This record gives sequence, C-alpha cells and structure tokens, in this order.
Amino acid sequence: MAEIRPVAHIKTGFSEKFGIPRQSNIAHATTAKIYFEKEFKDPQVIKGLEGFDYIWLLWHFDEEVEKLTVAPPKLGGKKHMGIFATRSPLRPNHIGLSSVRLLSSGVDEVGLYLEVGGADLMDGTAIYDIKPYLPYTDAHPNARGGYAGEVLFETLVVKYDPSVLDKLPKEIIVPLTQVLHVDPRPAYKKDSDEMYAIAYEGFDIHFTVSDGVLRVVDAIPYGERKIK
Amino acid sequence: MAEIRPVAHIKTGFSEKFGIPRQSNIAHATTAKIYFEKEFKDPQVIKGLEGFDYIWLLWHFDEEVEKLTVAPPKLGGKKHMGIFATRSPLRPNHIGLSSVRLLSSGVDEVGLYLEVGGADLMDGTAIYDIKPYLPYTDAHPNARGGYAGEVLFETLVVKYDPSVLDKLPKEIIVPLTQVLHVDPRPAYKKDSDEMYAIAYEGFDIHFTVSDGVLRVVDAIPYGERKIK
Repeated sequence: MAEIRPVAHIKTGFSEKFGIPRQSNIAHATTAKIYFEKEFKDPQVIKGLEGFDYIWLLWHFDEEVEKLTVAPPKLGGKKHMGIFATRSPLRPNHIGLSSVRLLSSGVDEVGLYLEVGGADLMDGTAIYDIKPYLPYTDAHPNARGGYAGEVLFETLVVKYDPSVLDKLPKEIIVPLTQVLHVDPRPAYKKDSDEMYAIAYEGFDIHFTVSDGVLRVVDAIPYGERKIK
Repeated sequence: MAEIRPVAHIKTGFSEKFGIPRQSNIAHATTAKIYFEKEFKDPQVIKGLEGFDYIWLLWHFDEEVEKLTVAPPKLGGKKHMGIFATRSPLRPNHIGLSSVRLLSSGVDEVGLYLEVGGADLMDGTAIYDIKPYLPYTDAHPNARGGYAGEVLFETLVVKYDPSVLDKLPKEIIVPLTQVLHVDPRPAYKKDSDEMYAIAYEGFDIHFTVSDGVLRVVDAIPYGERKIK
C-alpha cells in the first residue's frame, strides 16, 4: 500500500462525464488549465518543460466498481476484455493516463498553471503526476493497437441550427464540434430521434442524431438549466 | 489522499539500480516477466491484450527524497530542471511510467505472467497498473523532446575479454551489450581506468572505459561475489 495525493487539479469545459471524448487528442481543439497545489506553486517545478510539445498526465478516475473484465465502448459495450487490456476507468488504483499538448504556462489570479490541449478529463479532476513526453522512448507509431485499432471511430456530420450558433461563444464552436463529431452517445443507447444533451463550457448542448447527422438544436446556459 | 496497491511485481535481470537503462526500450533485447498478485491471477484480466505490441506500466519508484528541481543525467547532472519537466524518480507520488514490448503471456509455476521486452525496472518492482498502448492517442513521433531531445545518447563500443565470454550464458550477451552500450556510468563520475561493476542476470559485470571503448574484464556470479 502507498499513499498518493494530488499535485494539481485541472479546469476543463467538461462539467459532466457524459460527452467527454474517450481518449486524449481526439478533440484536440479543446483547451484546459492545470493549476498546481500549494506546495508546487513555485514556477521552478516546470523549468525546462517549455521545450516539450506533449506532457503526460496521471490522474484520478472517479469510479468505484472494480472488475476483472469490462466491455469497451469501442466494441459496442457487449464484448468483454480483461481490465488490463483496456483503458477503462473501472480498474485497480483508479489512475488514468493521457498525453496532452502543452500550449503555454503562466501565473494568473489562481496561481501557476499549464495550458493544455486535447485533455479527456472532467472539470476538477485530481492530477497525480505530470511528466514530459519523450518521443524517443514513448512514441511507437507502428505498434499494433489490438481490438482498439481494428475498430474505426464512428464519426458524424455535425450541423447547428442557426439560432444555436447565435447563443454560443465563437471560440467554443470548433472544440465542441470535435467533441460531437466522434459521437458522444453511450455505446448501448443509440436511438434515432432521441434527444441527448452534453455539458460543455457552461452550456447544456441538446442534439439529435439521425442517418449519420448530429443536429445541435439548442444550447442552454447552466443558469437556465431546465432538463437534467 | 488515495491509497494504491500493487497489482503485480516484475522479475528482471537488474538486481541493483546501477546499470539500469534510464528509459524503457533502450536495451530492447532485455526481457522480464510480470507476475500478477493473487487477486488478479485469473487469465481473464489480460483477455484481448495479445493484439497489442506495447503495454504501459505504472510502477513504484523506490526513492525517498522529494524536490522541486532535479539535475537530469542527460545534462551531465549539473543543470537543474523542474521536477515536472523530468522523468526523475525523485518526484511526488513516486510513480514511474514505461512503455514495454509485449512478447508473450502464460502461466508457470509462479502464476499468470506477461513477458515483456525493454523494461527499465529493477527486479521486484511493484506494478500499479498495466494498460494497452494505443498508437492512435499515445504516439506522437514528431513531438519536440525538449532538452532531453537535444542531447544524443553517448554510446560506447563494447568489447569482451575472451575469458568473460566463456563465463556468460550466450542468451544474455546481446541484452547485456545493449545495457553497456549506452554507458551505465553515473553522469557525475566518468573516470578513465576506473573499475566499474553492474549487476545483471546473476552476474557482477566488471568493466573499464577508456577512449570510448567499454571493456568487460570479468563476470562473477553473485554466489562468488568478492566486491560490493
């Protein structure tokens, strides 16, 4: 047994689990800020990091159940694989691993931060470690990706109702579209004409999916939330 | 605070820290076996893993001191970088990250195991997690590698005294040569004509280095160990 504690927390646009891309770098235009805990607020802790394009995040999966096998969403949620053959959150020690693009660093009113792109983490997630990405030892572009490599991402055409585009800040349109493009619906529930909603950057984004087209029909600020 | 516990332990040829390559995949011919703990001995836990070429290991760094900056060996051990800009073991939460090649899996007299190549871990190291390597999200071959990418590995020509080759099992010559090739001497201590020794696969390997040539002068089985 060993004890671990957060070194930082991340601030992202994803305030709920539903809708978060299932791996990092899929919605690469999404940005997030990592704020260091008190004991690591000294800018010395990131000296030299500016020369790296990517960093590794080790982070806390907020899930309770542990199993020996799980059913990966990529396989439709029906076929079971061993827990150590998946990146599922339902695992011993509840530690997630994500490579994210390092965009900038600085100090703002909250404190020392790293700005990153492509993070697949919920807002407020505890970060246990940050390490530089070393391409000479970490990059294996020709590696076989097992069952996960054989299944292509299902992608959808994303369309916005004109009234929705008026409601959304311009800067979130591109990252939101990337999030929707890879189909955020749960693998076990993909009904045509059903209304779905994901939470992103302060908005409940309502959409339907039909014949490969995802149509965004409304965007409601959290303050005016009507459905749960 | 969260508690984590080992899911497995690794059996490698490296019985001492000195001489272990500083990142995974450098001595790619070295092999090791990962044995699962009792609660994960069911072969179900690795179902589906056989289709992946690489796996991630999250493992326990057995180091005590924590600092805000460290002096990476690649920079000669003199220039300090932030702890989150290095892969140093002297870090919060003491978790190491290595990608290793998955060679085989099976069950032997000890139990369920994964056989892997290129592990930079000391014999007996606790493994906290095993995850499949997903090239579509983990591989960034063109990423800038910061200060670590600018410094090339110093490599040495490795020569064996004929008497030493007679003492060593044939199958360890290639991995041992890879370990020695990247110069296992500490960054702060590289004296010509000094006698060094590393522990590998049951032998104390004695060598000297002079003018870019590493000469292996003796190999003493642990049972006959004379020097410490």
